[in-house]
Amino acid sequence: MATIATDMDVITLVNVFSVSPERQQQLADLLVEATRSVMNRLPGFVSANIHSSLDGTRVVNYAQWRRVDDFEAMLRDATAQEHMQAATQLAERVEPHLYRVVFSDPAGTAHGT
Amino acid sequence: MATIATDMDVITLVNVFSVSPERQQQLADLLVEATRSVMNRLPGFVSANIHSSLDGTRVVNYAQWRRVDDFEAMLRDATAQEHMQAATQLAERVEPHLYRVVFSDPAGTAHGT
Repeated sequence: MATIATDMDVITLVNVFSVSPERQQQLADLLVEATRSVMNRLPGFVSANIHSSLDGTRVVNYAQWRRVDDFEAMLRDATAQEHMQAATQLAERVEPHLYRVVFSDPAGTAHGT
Repeated sequence: MATIATDMDVITLVNVFSVSPERQQQLADLLVEATRSVMNRLPGFVSANIHSSLDGTRVVNYAQWRRVDDFEAMLRDATAQEHMQAATQLAERVEPHLYRVVFSDPAGTAHGT
């Protein structure tokens, strides 16, 4: 599980993959495999959360990293690059952006209220 | 705070707003206000989490609703429509999709492990 809260010390990657519905499952599986075999062993990894759209046309990775530097080091990792390239080839469009959480409702702390 | 987990009984809206950087703050504020004054009072609301991209060009609302029907009822609510229209007018592009969580790492339950 992952927690979303304004007081967590993370940066968030929201990576939106546009995909043809017949490839959605394959792309989601590939992102799961990349997380399990590569990403979650890298420094600064906090969480990855793979989402498949009900309409079949999108896969979203909502991922948390400790710092921007950790995310950028992942981008330079050769094995991570292989997996990202495979995901990009399955998708029609890939739109990654880094975010900070500015508001969460219900409010609370990362340890629950 | 919000929790992301595969065993939560929610559907997830990931709404990506593309915006010019000079309007990003205004758009984020508007979504916060819409959540506080309208959305969080509607049946089936679970959470809304507003994210601003570090590059200034995106705002993401990661929102959880109990059921698709609750989300669709919100879309028909006149006051919610007013707020959504105002947000759409500030944005250059709005891309809402509904998702299910297919994988979360670290794994765990919604109540923490």
